[in-house]
Amino acid sequence: MTRIDFQTDPSRYRHWKIETNGDVAYLIMDVDPAGGLSDGYELKLNSYDLGVDIELNDAVQRLRFEHPEVRAVVIKSGKDNVFCAGANIRMLGKATHGHKVNFCKFTNETRLAIEDASENSKQVYICAINGNAAGGGYELALAADHIMLVDDRRSAVALPETPLLAVLPGTGGLTRVTDKRKVRRDRADVFCSIEEGIRGAKAVEWRLVDEVVPNSKWKEAVAARAHEIAARSDRPAGAKGVALTPLARRIEADRVSYSHVDVEIDRARGLATIIVRGPAQDVPASVEAAHALGDKFWPLTVARELEDAILHLRANEAAIGVVLLRTDGNAEAVLAHDDFLSRANGDWLMREVRHYLKRVLKRVDVTPKSFIALIEPGSCFAGTLAELAFAADRSLMLIGTRDGDNRAPAAITLGQANFGWYPMGNGITRLQTRFLGEPEQVDSLEEKIGAPVEAEEAAEFGLVTFAYEDFDWDDELRVMLEERASFSPDAMTGMEANLRFAGPETMETKIFGRLTAWQNWIFQRPNAIGEQGALKLYGSGVSPTFGRERV
Amino acid sequence: MTRIDFQTDPSRYRHWKIETNGDVAYLIMDVDPAGGLSDGYELKLNSYDLGVDIELNDAVQRLRFEHPEVRAVVIKSGKDNVFCAGANIRMLGKATHGHKVNFCKFTNETRLAIEDASENSKQVYICAINGNAAGGGYELALAADHIMLVDDRRSAVALPETPLLAVLPGTGGLTRVTDKRKVRRDRADVFCSIEEGIRGAKAVEWRLVDEVVPNSKWKEAVAARAHEIAARSDRPAGAKGVALTPLARRIEADRVSYSHVDVEIDRARGLATIIVRGPAQDVPASVEAAHALGDKFWPLTVARELEDAILHLRANEAAIGVVLLRTDGNAEAVLAHDDFLSRANGDWLMREVRHYLKRVLKRVDVTPKSFIALIEPGSCFAGTLAELAFAADRSLMLIGTRDGDNRAPAAITLGQANFGWYPMGNGITRLQTRFLGEPEQVDSLEEKIGAPVEAEEAAEFGLVTFAYEDFDWDDELRVMLEERASFSPDAMTGMEANLRFAGPETMETKIFGRLTAWQNWIFQRPNAIGEQGALKLYGSGVSPTFGRERV
Repeated sequence: MTRIDFQTDPSRYRHWKIETNGDVAYLIMDVDPAGGLSDGYELKLNSYDLGVDIELNDAVQRLRFEHPEVRAVVIKSGKDNVFCAGANIRMLGKATHGHKVNFCKFTNETRLAIEDASENSKQVYICAINGNAAGGGYELALAADHIMLVDDRRSAVALPETPLLAVLPGTGGLTRVTDKRKVRRDRADVFCSIEEGIRGAKAVEWRLVDEVVPNSKWKEAVAARAHEIAARSDRPAGAKGVALTPLARRIEADRVSYSHVDVEIDRARGLATIIVRGPAQDVPASVEAAHALGDKFWPLTVARELEDAILHLRANEAAIGVVLLRTDGNAEAVLAHDDFLSRANGDWLMREVRHYLKRVLKRVDVTPKSFIALIEPGSCFAGTLAELAFAADRSLMLIGTRDGDNRAPAAITLGQANFGWYPMGNGITRLQTRFLGEPEQVDSLEEKIGAPVEAEEAAEFGLVTFAYEDFDWDDELRVMLEERASFSPDAMTGMEANLRFAGPETMETKIFGRLTAWQNWIFQRPNAIGEQGALKLYGSGVSPTFGRERV
Repeated sequence: MTRIDFQTDPSRYRHWKIETNGDVAYLIMDVDPAGGLSDGYELKLNSYDLGVDIELNDAVQRLRFEHPEVRAVVIKSGKDNVFCAGANIRMLGKATHGHKVNFCKFTNETRLAIEDASENSKQVYICAINGNAAGGGYELALAADHIMLVDDRRSAVALPETPLLAVLPGTGGLTRVTDKRKVRRDRADVFCSIEEGIRGAKAVEWRLVDEVVPNSKWKEAVAARAHEIAARSDRPAGAKGVALTPLARRIEADRVSYSHVDVEIDRARGLATIIVRGPAQDVPASVEAAHALGDKFWPLTVARELEDAILHLRANEAAIGVVLLRTDGNAEAVLAHDDFLSRANGDWLMREVRHYLKRVLKRVDVTPKSFIALIEPGSCFAGTLAELAFAADRSLMLIGTRDGDNRAPAAITLGQANFGWYPMGNGITRLQTRFLGEPEQVDSLEEKIGAPVEAEEAAEFGLVTFAYEDFDWDDELRVMLEERASFSPDAMTGMEANLRFAGPETMETKIFGRLTAWQNWIFQRPNAIGEQGALKLYGSGVSPTFGRERV
């Protein structure tokens, strides 16, 4: 299979255009029907596949970093009378189960990134629907803060997945309808059963869109709304964006290398190792100096590289079940960068960097691989990088030093970053989730900020799963990895999806937990994917035949 | 297939014994290996199938109603050195997908009923584990308020589903470990990967049990703990229980009839109609009179009959996709019974009745059928019975009267029961869930308590989905039912599981949403159920072969 690459830039977009006009950007969807990621389907009517969403994800990201002046983003269609027909059905019909699940996960993350931009970057998204927004098309709109629908007696919003395809509006659709738009459940039931959707005033009354606008006033109304929303943003005036330049990445057979991240792949053992290197550079002398570094500012570099590594493993290395997380470098330098981020917190770019790191860590949380953090001498699990240990399913820490290694014993150093910067999807921090049963432990750990905690103490504090002496380390790790490799990959995925998210639930955890799990279930049912199933037969002119058993 | 019957009584139990000793009851699990619901498996080592759980459910229910004097219930094993080996694996290996899902749903409901008894009836459950509590065995223990484990260097608690069977501890296990016991997630990961489980002091340290007790002091320690916990209960002294007598039930080919509930089955259309009849009796003159009625007290009768009807449809009528909900009777009589329940709220039996109605309504919420309430002249959707309309996926209400029918137009009458008596699994009422986007609407509806609301007003208030005139009614209903019948049953199940539970999430909704959905997904994966899958090969001596793809 061709490697899926999550890196792109506007010069290579085939499906989207970014047009900026002062503080408003227009993000224009104009999908090239011939531009599918694979052969065998045409992306008609602005339907999309993963490739289209990779561009969207890139655009959302660049708007935040490269366009500080943009305070409102209008998503609209570049085609007349067509907004977006959603995920391409022939693509879904041909895709493997794994690809469907991966596709939905990534598109969900992109929609959440849009919401994160509106909420936390005050780069607020508006969706201007001129034409039909069906299925994933309406789910894209649902990610916006404000939904406008043209009132032309034709354009409608719809979630026709269930009646048409026997699957769910699984890119957050069902959850956002009830929990974000707060549509009454019986109306939601009706809405999700109507192929043609709902239009005009009724769409407003049912809370499906925020306003409808006559065709004659459409363009001005959208522009006016965008300017009004932009005026409420706190984004800076006169700031200069930071270009996200191509990653320094080298892909080899068993290795992907970046400037500060390496991924080593051992396919025979189903094992990958991600090594994140701490900063080689000093902390910038000033906020201006950090801006001048641009995407070479260490926290931003690491966020980009780690994100690409995680996405690569998900999409291109499905048979890798376990990922070892290592760090390498100077803990104090990591903490110094955290301190810098903290001091410069009022700066728009530093805010973006922190929210980006948050999103990358969330990608780890929903990645279907077992993560095991290895905390050894020479590592730098401190502050932001300590979150990697807390994101892991297990962590192993070496007690003392190794023969012939004169580096200091391994330590975890907590920083303020561990106490609120990086909430998980459940809305609380990894430490709060970890210590759900002993919340006072989080308070007492906060008093240890800045103090290196060595292995035995870290085990006692509950910061690591196991602390081993050097003479046990290799055996313990080997046995653990062999054991993990012997388990069913599906059971691991299900187990991790449940154990990682203790405590409160949010719309986000509902989407990745409840909705996604049901969709994945349906994606395996004969009624959807069997020879007589709706996904398989869509477009063939033959009606699906359903087994009638209700489960 | 043999009809599965959810009715039983202690004289027929093959697997459980109830022994009472003052304010403590012992619920003793002693599974008859030959007493499986189907052939082809032996229930060794206190492993269980649906039949064992039907008895447990019955016992939990009877303890609440028939034993007001019991303030603490100790679940223990009747076998030496064996607590419970969990769900029977050969049974699971042979079961259809639908049966597995139904089995897990019912056992989940039983565990939640145990928790409901501890919390709301102050009949507090203790689990006394003498031997291994593995898989569903430990999940049963997790439902208790207090878990005791004998410290004999042998007895352990374990969730070996993942390493042994390639499925999840899906009867609430993963969720209760993280969210009820609040076990640290990395320890939970370790615990769920260890076949042999965890015993002794470590089980306490890891929060898996509340105490361990040496073998020599076991019996006295359990009794002492039970008496101590019983002493804290507010259950009445000297009260007399109410016997749950056999249901007045007649099962025919296309109909199940009870005293106040009828179920009509139209298999050709995949349709069932449940008719609930309002009280024919006057409100009892006093609390004593209500006690004297026993299980003939209308609210209790209706709860029992409706529950049995729902369970019957789930287990024995899988091909029924849509259930019409009708009521028949006098709304004022329903409300008078609600008022009686409210006035007598301090009485233990009235409290039980209300909590039981709550649990029955929750069974509707998690039943994989589309529910459509039909509100017509002669119906009595008032107070408690109005909840049926709010539990439905859709409701249709007739405007005005029908030709030749001189009954008053249909009305919904709200009662105090609709404003807090019957929270859903998400912890809020059906009206709060319904009006998540307009919470003020709930307040303004509370002012309408007692006033009959006719169709057009009900539609305006958002209480019903559609209001139709008589001349449209039949066509609209017919089209709706034909449409519903044309959809994929799986997509309906997934859609309803998502749309019914807007708003907050609780441990309960997490269990039915996240955990169950992932388990159902895994229950379809070749790694579990394929010819080389772990569930299929368990006990054969052959190791399963897993596809390595991580999804």
